[in-house]
Amino acid sequence: MPQFIKQHLVVAQNASGRNMNVPLYRFVGDEQGPKVYIQSSIHGAEVQGNVVIYHLIQKLQNMPIRGEIILVPNCNPVGTNIKAGEYTLGRFDPVNGTNWNRGYHFDQAFVEEFATTVNTAESVESIKQRFRAAMKKQLQDKLAQDWGVGLAQRLNLMLQQLAFDADYVLDLHNGPVSTRHIYVPEYAKKSASLFNIPHVILIPQVFSGALDEATFCPWWLLTDLVNQQESRQFNFDVEAFTLEMGSQEVIDFAEGEIDATGILTYLTAKKVLVESELIPKEMSRKAVLLEDYKILYSKQGGIVEYMLKPGESANKGDVLARVLNVDNLESENATSDILAPCDLVAILHFPSASILSGTQLYKCFTKYFEL
Amino acid sequence: MPQFIKQHLVVAQNASGRNMNVPLYRFVGDEQGPKVYIQSSIHGAEVQGNVVIYHLIQKLQNMPIRGEIILVPNCNPVGTNIKAGEYTLGRFDPVNGTNWNRGYHFDQAFVEEFATTVNTAESVESIKQRFRAAMKKQLQDKLAQDWGVGLAQRLNLMLQQLAFDADYVLDLHNGPVSTRHIYVPEYAKKSASLFNIPHVILIPQVFSGALDEATFCPWWLLTDLVNQQESRQFNFDVEAFTLEMGSQEVIDFAEGEIDATGILTYLTAKKVLVESELIPKEMSRKAVLLEDYKILYSKQGGIVEYMLKPGESANKGDVLARVLNVDNLESENATSDILAPCDLVAILHFPSASILSGTQLYKCFTKYFEL
Amino acid sequence: MPQFIKQHLVVAQNASGRNMNVPLYRFVGDEQGPKVYIQSSIHGAEVQGNVVIYHLIQKLQNMPIRGEIILVPNCNPVGTNIKAGEYTLGRFDPVNGTNWNRGYHFDQAFVEEFATTVNTAESVESIKQRFRAAMKKQLQDKLAQDWGVGLAQRLNLMLQQLAFDADYVLDLHNGPVSTRHIYVPEYAKKSASLFNIPHVILIPQVFSGALDEATFCPWWLLTDLVNQQESRQFNFDVEAFTLEMGSQEVIDFAEGEIDATGILTYLTAKKVLVESELIPKEMSRKAVLLEDYKILYSKQGGIVEYMLKPGESANKGDVLARVLNVDNLESENATSDILAPCDLVAILHFPSASILSGTQLYKCFTKYFEL
Amino acid sequence: MPQFIKQHLVVAQNASGRNMNVPLYRFVGDEQGPKVYIQSSIHGAEVQGNVVIYHLIQKLQNMPIRGEIILVPNCNPVGTNIKAGEYTLGRFDPVNGTNWNRGYHFDQAFVEEFATTVNTAESVESIKQRFRAAMKKQLQDKLAQDWGVGLAQRLNLMLQQLAFDADYVLDLHNGPVSTRHIYVPEYAKKSASLFNIPHVILIPQVFSGALDEATFCPWWLLTDLVNQQESRQFNFDVEAFTLEMGSQEVIDFAEGEIDATGILTYLTAKKVLVESELIPKEMSRKAVLLEDYKILYSKQGGIVEYMLKPGESANKGDVLARVLNVDNLESENATSDILAPCDLVAILHFPSASILSGTQLYKCFTKYFEL
Repeated sequence: MPQFIKQHLVVAQNASGRNMNVPLYRFVGDEQGPKVYIQSSIHGAEVQGNVVIYHLIQKLQNMPIRGEIILVPNCNPVGTNIKAGEYTLGRFDPVNGTNWNRGYHFDQAFVEEFATTVNTAESVESIKQRFRAAMKKQLQDKLAQDWGVGLAQRLNLMLQQLAFDADYVLDLHNGPVSTRHIYVPEYAKKSASLFNIPHVILIPQVFSGALDEATFCPWWLLTDLVNQQESRQFNFDVEAFTLEMGSQEVIDFAEGEIDATGILTYLTAKKVLVESELIPKEMSRKAVLLEDYKILYSKQGGIVEYMLKPGESANKGDVLARVLNVDNLESENATSDILAPCDLVAILHFPSASILSGTQLYKCFTKYFEL
Repeated sequence: MPQFIKQHLVVAQNASGRNMNVPLYRFVGDEQGPKVYIQSSIHGAEVQGNVVIYHLIQKLQNMPIRGEIILVPNCNPVGTNIKAGEYTLGRFDPVNGTNWNRGYHFDQAFVEEFATTVNTAESVESIKQRFRAAMKKQLQDKLAQDWGVGLAQRLNLMLQQLAFDADYVLDLHNGPVSTRHIYVPEYAKKSASLFNIPHVILIPQVFSGALDEATFCPWWLLTDLVNQQESRQFNFDVEAFTLEMGSQEVIDFAEGEIDATGILTYLTAKKVLVESELIPKEMSRKAVLLEDYKILYSKQGGIVEYMLKPGESANKGDVLARVLNVDNLESENATSDILAPCDLVAILHFPSASILSGTQLYKCFTKYFEL
Repeated sequence: MPQFIKQHLVVAQNASGRNMNVPLYRFVGDEQGPKVYIQSSIHGAEVQGNVVIYHLIQKLQNMPIRGEIILVPNCNPVGTNIKAGEYTLGRFDPVNGTNWNRGYHFDQAFVEEFATTVNTAESVESIKQRFRAAMKKQLQDKLAQDWGVGLAQRLNLMLQQLAFDADYVLDLHNGPVSTRHIYVPEYAKKSASLFNIPHVILIPQVFSGALDEATFCPWWLLTDLVNQQESRQFNFDVEAFTLEMGSQEVIDFAEGEIDATGILTYLTAKKVLVESELIPKEMSRKAVLLEDYKILYSKQGGIVEYMLKPGESANKGDVLARVLNVDNLESENATSDILAPCDLVAILHFPSASILSGTQLYKCFTKYFEL
Repeated sequence: MPQFIKQHLVVAQNASGRNMNVPLYRFVGDEQGPKVYIQSSIHGAEVQGNVVIYHLIQKLQNMPIRGEIILVPNCNPVGTNIKAGEYTLGRFDPVNGTNWNRGYHFDQAFVEEFATTVNTAESVESIKQRFRAAMKKQLQDKLAQDWGVGLAQRLNLMLQQLAFDADYVLDLHNGPVSTRHIYVPEYAKKSASLFNIPHVILIPQVFSGALDEATFCPWWLLTDLVNQQESRQFNFDVEAFTLEMGSQEVIDFAEGEIDATGILTYLTAKKVLVESELIPKEMSRKAVLLEDYKILYSKQGGIVEYMLKPGESANKGDVLARVLNVDNLESENATSDILAPCDLVAILHFPSASILSGTQLYKCFTKYFEL
């Protein structure tokens, strides 16, 4: 059985001057092997991932593993605890609007410079070790700078120090009202089928601040650079994913167990679980390129019924949503319909019936294909 | 067909200095008859009532009526438009926490004094007219006072001026995550069966600031006072109800039509609808006294799955909810169960999985009986 | 020197499942004497009281005392930590709008019943002890009830258990933009001059949920009841005050030291400080009855300059504030003036230039008199 | 006298389905001349600019002008009206955290392509006209796209359509607690001295979404591109500035008149005001490069007194702020001091005494120089 260690990591201090920490659960295998890092709830209202981690921890206590698995539930003690009305204002820092999942670090120049230090003879393990050490140094320097670091960024950098050590990084999120979907870097497209998640978004090598990008962008870029120079082709086998486990603001223990099994299936394929024989489900997996994962913004304000449910498909011109205008209730203009601009699958929709113009009404798969 | 009039009533001015108004829809019958007042969304996130009013207006355009029906959808233009995160912070003024449904007016001394002016010979109609005029004067004086009136109270008093003219007052609300239920003054218990709503809360003659109370308390007290003095027994036939049409933050057009039909059923019984032959559904109607409509507060904080759904019943000791504690995920204390303190029916529960200690987890019928 | 004890009291649990506590600082004198209870920041944005308590603690370490002094700074760990934008949303529970200072307990029937148990021969000390024990029992029962207690009320009841033991209770608050003022129960009018606070509000025996009322109402009522029955006149010498130490959202260490000295002056008069020779400043102390402490609500919305500063007086008709209407900037109606409805002293004003209609613009002394 | 036109522009629709508009005030001169665009309050709590525009409009009614001046006060009807507690949550969309001043449009490729269409012989006026028409087309296309546009971006793009027509663009803001300062593009450094603002930040040709950048970046880049190709040196004489008129949440009519005079002084120098003889004040103007305008983040959480006031300078090691830790009030660690990391001038500080770790405590000029 793996060695189990529980720790706490101080990531912030609140206005009472009290330390705020996150729990770390570590399972260390007898055998050498890859490192896995799994966190949940960086967005405070996206809580189902905590249930998934709960089931993972319960199961892992009885599973021999190779390498190490670190699990960090409820990884944002600030975002988890900001209520605004009955709901949790968990997507951004209430002080300044900073998205809690956009402050991770990626420095292209740093990777480019590091790439020049790699020579053909060096082993993959040596490169990985040197790259991680250099990156860790960079993160520490950022955290230690004289003028300080913003709250969200500090949290992100502290978590990134843990995550960048790992070969497989899973960041557990939820959509607003959402079906399950997963963000997969294009180079790891094959791994998309190792999970039991029916909707897959393939993302390019572009950094916009999230943990998955901050993990795979450096390795992806490094791979491109060293393989471009060299006859030998390096494969660092680092993967990072954002998993969206349904809707925010709700938890479901039974579904969480299914979600956990899906993750164990992936880890089985990656040879982390010594005895597991889990294999991916045979199922339809629809995929899109990120550029075809479209946001539909409302043009009007009003009160909306979302007719198309997450996971359902529509043809161009089908009614997605019906808007009530309270000033015209006696007329034919009392309601107006929002139509599908093209064939699509609804992945998620806005969680409130009350919308202003310019609201992210739906996010949709368009031009999707079977994986 | 009834005469149809649409108006707007200015109820506030925003920080841009712009007037904020509510729409009034009036249907005036050819025949004399009672007055009906129906409003919705005094709590900004409770929007299903607007859909109900939409269906009512669509239907009433083709229904001959007696008397007059006033419908005021979206009656709180401030509360409707305060977002805090994706949800609508609609229950209270974000500036000072004032519940939008607690600023109506009731002055016991005023009713007691008015009662002394009633003599045995006076007709019910005359008393009603005089009482309404006197009450209207009181509301106007409050609104006109030199030192001004708070935002929520001003809104309430302006709506109350309209509502107090009516014989039948319906205030359309929603619970957080909720089954349909209705608040009924004890004296109008019989009318509870004229709606198609399965859960009924019977409330005593106590004023705590809501529109229904502000409507029935004066008439109830007046009735008690004049009937105590007199041999003759007066019946003013004024009724007021708060209808809770399911959950906040969602609308459903199909359910709204069913809700509207339920209201028309009540109005049919009250002889407002000349040609309607709607009769109440045969159904189970569970009722409780207000004192037996209990709030269950959480003792711990954490992440919760609500196991008992609104409308479902539980026996004493059954699991209502399961709380996850992210600091103990490896142990037997990872989850703890919240048990039913007695036999109950869940009417509504908190709409977020994330709770602090002292959260209103459930509201429940206890010691309920069939109506 | 007094014995010094530091403790922490758990008052809530947050959504991470973590305990939230408040610090208790106790100074216990060598000699017997009265008990003093001082808390600050029950409203999370009203933070100057923490600075005052800091200075008190620094000074008390070197002052021999009689009896005991308990100081509870930052007594609301939830309210202190709810940001909404850059400011602290500290006056009410963000979930439900409950004012953090309205959930203390007072039960008139309980006091009336207790009064019947008092006989002429009983000593004041015995009555006080019995009354406190009975009250404590009542508070514990409320906290322990099966169905639980709301977050704000639980916090209040836990603090009240400490405060009700004390003879002198000081609750340290701040106004929005405010001059220093103090709420004093009418029976303790003489004590108003023992502080160095220039504005005094005299409050009647009415309970609306605040700590000062929850402290003095029971004793006041008990005194009235037992003295009405008996030839002998009891004086329990219990006093409670709400001190408003200037404006919220700012602290000032230098002013805090002056504030602390004012409190020590009161405690000197009450014979708590063995060696202190502090005497109250000679100064003008303006007082009003609570009914003459008036709120001026704005009639319009817009952007406001507050011309009359806290502490300044105005005559009837003087300009208090000037409102800009952005839709009429070219005209004579670009600005409109808000005038004093009567002679007054401004005590505090709203802290933002942006107001809706019905905003609490100013709170003012009218019909004030020199104490 | 100039021709005066007042219009309203619909920029959004709220959850009640009501249009939200901004007022446009236009002054059109008899003589040809440059176009000026001035807006205020894109951040809803930054309201002093509205007072400045009020004074400008009052004055301009009596001043002959060349060209045209458009003034758009209160240009964000959504942000102005979002209260969270007593303050205005005006910096970002409360739904998603989007900063209201980061959604303007700049497309480097578009400018580069346009530059290839410019030939040596073309007049400056012709180029400006063509560039504006092409840009306007691009903005319209963005606004008209099938899938819609987010709320903040739509507002920004609609305002940008007006602003991009202008030669001189002034965006009026406020800091939290702040002294007056101005952002100036490096190429327009000389113009910094045409205002009466003592602190100047010189910004490079980098776009991060704000209106000033969205105005000057295209022209700056175009200038660089066409002047690089050609012997002839084009000067389009387009300038854009962000003016920070003191602190948010307050207005001051008297200071607003001084601010307005400063702007008229700039417009005088730009030959917009036919008869004005205003000249800039002789005064110290401190300037920094943007990279030397530093943010100081707090390392701890707690309650803070800001010792260094906006506009004041400190030497390395001086105390900027003092933090109280409520858990250590009896000890020497009760307070801790935050020191200046280098010589600096404080420009603004956080507006609340209550801070978490990672709060933007101060923004400071370092390595500043006299202009």
